[in-house]
Amino acid sequence: MAVDADEAIYELEKALGKNLSTDLDAAKLERMQAALDDVPLRQIIELIERQSSPRGAVLLRLLPPQRATAVFDALDPAHQADLVEALSDESVTSLFAALGAEDRVQLLDNLPAEIADQVMSGLDEEERESTNALLGYEKGTVGRHMSPDVLAVGAGEGVGVVVDKLKAQAADLETIYLLPVVDDDLMLVGVAELKDLFVTHADTIGQVMREPVWAEATDSAEDTARWLLATTNIAVPVVDADKRLVGVFTYDEAHDVIEDADSEDTARQGGAEALRRPYLSTPVRELFRSRIVWLLVLAVSAILTVQVLDVFEGTIAQVTVLSLFIPLLTGTGGNTGNQAATTVTRALALNDVRTRDILPVMWREVRVGLMLGLVLGTLGLVLGWVVFGSDIGIIIGATLLSICTMSATVGGVMPILAKTIGADPAVFSNPFISTFCDATGLIIYFLIAKAVLGL
Amino acid sequence: MAVDADEAIYELEKALGKNLSTDLDAAKLERMQAALDDVPLRQIIELIERQSSPRGAVLLRLLPPQRATAVFDALDPAHQADLVEALSDESVTSLFAALGAEDRVQLLDNLPAEIADQVMSGLDEEERESTNALLGYEKGTVGRHMSPDVLAVGAGEGVGVVVDKLKAQAADLETIYLLPVVDDDLMLVGVAELKDLFVTHADTIGQVMREPVWAEATDSAEDTARWLLATTNIAVPVVDADKRLVGVFTYDEAHDVIEDADSEDTARQGGAEALRRPYLSTPVRELFRSRIVWLLVLAVSAILTVQVLDVFEGTIAQVTVLSLFIPLLTGTGGNTGNQAATTVTRALALNDVRTRDILPVMWREVRVGLMLGLVLGTLGLVLGWVVFGSDIGIIIGATLLSICTMSATVGGVMPILAKTIGADPAVFSNPFISTFCDATGLIIYFLIAKAVLGL
Repeated sequence: MAVDADEAIYELEKALGKNLSTDLDAAKLERMQAALDDVPLRQIIELIERQSSPRGAVLLRLLPPQRATAVFDALDPAHQADLVEALSDESVTSLFAALGAEDRVQLLDNLPAEIADQVMSGLDEEERESTNALLGYEKGTVGRHMSPDVLAVGAGEGVGVVVDKLKAQAADLETIYLLPVVDDDLMLVGVAELKDLFVTHADTIGQVMREPVWAEATDSAEDTARWLLATTNIAVPVVDADKRLVGVFTYDEAHDVIEDADSEDTARQGGAEALRRPYLSTPVRELFRSRIVWLLVLAVSAILTVQVLDVFEGTIAQVTVLSLFIPLLTGTGGNTGNQAATTVTRALALNDVRTRDILPVMWREVRVGLMLGLVLGTLGLVLGWVVFGSDIGIIIGATLLSICTMSATVGGVMPILAKTIGADPAVFSNPFISTFCDATGLIIYFLIAKAVLGL
Repeated sequence: MAVDADEAIYELEKALGKNLSTDLDAAKLERMQAALDDVPLRQIIELIERQSSPRGAVLLRLLPPQRATAVFDALDPAHQADLVEALSDESVTSLFAALGAEDRVQLLDNLPAEIADQVMSGLDEEERESTNALLGYEKGTVGRHMSPDVLAVGAGEGVGVVVDKLKAQAADLETIYLLPVVDDDLMLVGVAELKDLFVTHADTIGQVMREPVWAEATDSAEDTARWLLATTNIAVPVVDADKRLVGVFTYDEAHDVIEDADSEDTARQGGAEALRRPYLSTPVRELFRSRIVWLLVLAVSAILTVQVLDVFEGTIAQVTVLSLFIPLLTGTGGNTGNQAATTVTRALALNDVRTRDILPVMWREVRVGLMLGLVLGTLGLVLGWVVFGSDIGIIIGATLLSICTMSATVGGVMPILAKTIGADPAVFSNPFISTFCDATGLIIYFLIAKAVLGL
């Protein structure tokens, strides 16, 4: 199977590489269609993820409706949006209607307003209502990512009756594995797993159900997702402010939320914005746009280092050899700061550290920084002394000791401060700390140099 | 509930803050035990994650056996290992036996050999056998992370019979939601979800089952986990080289694998090794150890920049003002390279880019780098010209244009090259590229400067 599929994909990629409008005659389309029949869904999804949207749309049109729906469902919302714009109206309507309400909402967020209105008008009333209910919650909340398609049962219902209900409605439910239990006012009073119903000899749901764990619809989707995935729960019931059941947040939606959040953290740590589409299907101007703003901000703040060095230009003119160590020292400061910041940013993301832990974190980083500084400083002292003489050795050693301690401390504390003021810790974790450590490190360097050299 | 739990935790943290051995008399222990009763499991887990292992062990001992087991199960393997070493023998044996085989294997990997032997000897024969079977697979493979506790059924069995079997064995199975179907030789021939059995009116499993998707026990756990979590499947059957069913790989184990892999990527991108425990329960010397090696490697390779500048020391002595721009230029090069490397590394991790895509990636990055260089170069030209005169303006502008193009290209290609030779792309994505871009950027800078100034 694998070999055939690879060959079919190779043929398809070759065909797609040519100019689509002139080159794809009916016979060729038919051959491509036949080739696609042998390719497993997983590989078709990967293939479409690597194409620009007009080519992806051609591929999607070649698939029979059921496969097209499954493939479309698996794509990122931004990528879905590109395809919607590239496809014809009628096929879009059916693809859109086949999505779950929570996936529809993510897609709508990525569509231009007029196209969003158009696809919404293709839904039947019930689907439109459930989609609108989710759109009422703010981005980044659990409400925006939950599925409203959940079966709620009463504590008094019989276990056998409920299992039959689940069987009857299984096709329409987001999950049959988690069962929220509610009272007459739809307030959540317990949860049961399908597994519990299987194992029990009890008669009613009330005897099987456990103390409910829940998320509020206005809770942070990322925090809830991290928690859910750390447990062995498949889903968590979602309630409104009155504790009334409004939906269910499942582990696979949670995974999507975390993957997006981690992609954003990684990108920002590297001084860029996260791409909303797979890399190879992202237009080059989009890659440019995701990077230029940060690069400009960093370049402009790096002008600070030019000004710092301007102050010490006289010192450099007197002792040119001091300039040789500038990249080594700023680099080491930046690296030490980044290490600390990366570690603490990840710990914040995983909820291993909270904002109120700022003092223990600072005290840990001071000690780590000192230990790192002692090792690197000693090395700098010895190497500097041997190659450039005792004065330079002492200057480099002392500077490395100070810079490491300062950078680790600042690097560890900054992400927590960022989170405290409501900014994204990942933004501070790499680029800003480098710039800050560069400027401060240079000041430390030249002050130590002037003191040691008696300038 | 939430308020009481917070107060209880506050009291517990205060008690734990004191010297444990002298301060915790029987009355105090009893009060702590009572306080813990009101705290939900989720918060107890978070509390233990923030403690050093001796304190975590005290907390664990205070819990009734069932809760202790649930808490222990939720901790990271390295953290579990610390607790095992801090706990007494008898409680360890029961905690260890209560883990799933796949969690036991992860914990064993983190224990010193003699303690590992000791806890293994506490298992009954069946548990020991299933654990040993998993230990036979290499680290990082699906086999090491699968659960052997799976119910396999034949295609000829009746749907009702199988549902009854699932009910009877639910408590011992890793999941009842995925059902691998095998032939008489235990070869995998299909899969069914419990949901499918619920919806169907068919008589036998063979009529309900779908074409099987599977993982081989020797497949990469990370790749399989990424794929599994991107689908809506709850688990995937695992087979050996003969396609015989050996276990099941579930979404929650997949999530653990991905979280570890992402933590490692993030840490390496920041030039450190991933911590195996939560930040606040990691000893300071462990933090030091996770960073010092990389910092030394980077500092030693930064000596390259000292040597480059040494070559151009004469030029700096003639035109000191050139030294002012060193951190700005190396910083911008490093940032541009990091942006590209971070983006491509993440795309590799998500399988959006493969190693054979090296040429398209390179061509994209050349164009992005040129666009970035044109914007930054123009800015550098204008600012340099206004403040330091036309010569400096031209030098800075031309250098920024060259550095941005070079850094984006190198930054985009290096992670792919790393993966091609079997190294970790994340290692190359930040620290090495900075150092490389620093040295190359300085050479470009001084060559342009000498040409423009006619030195």
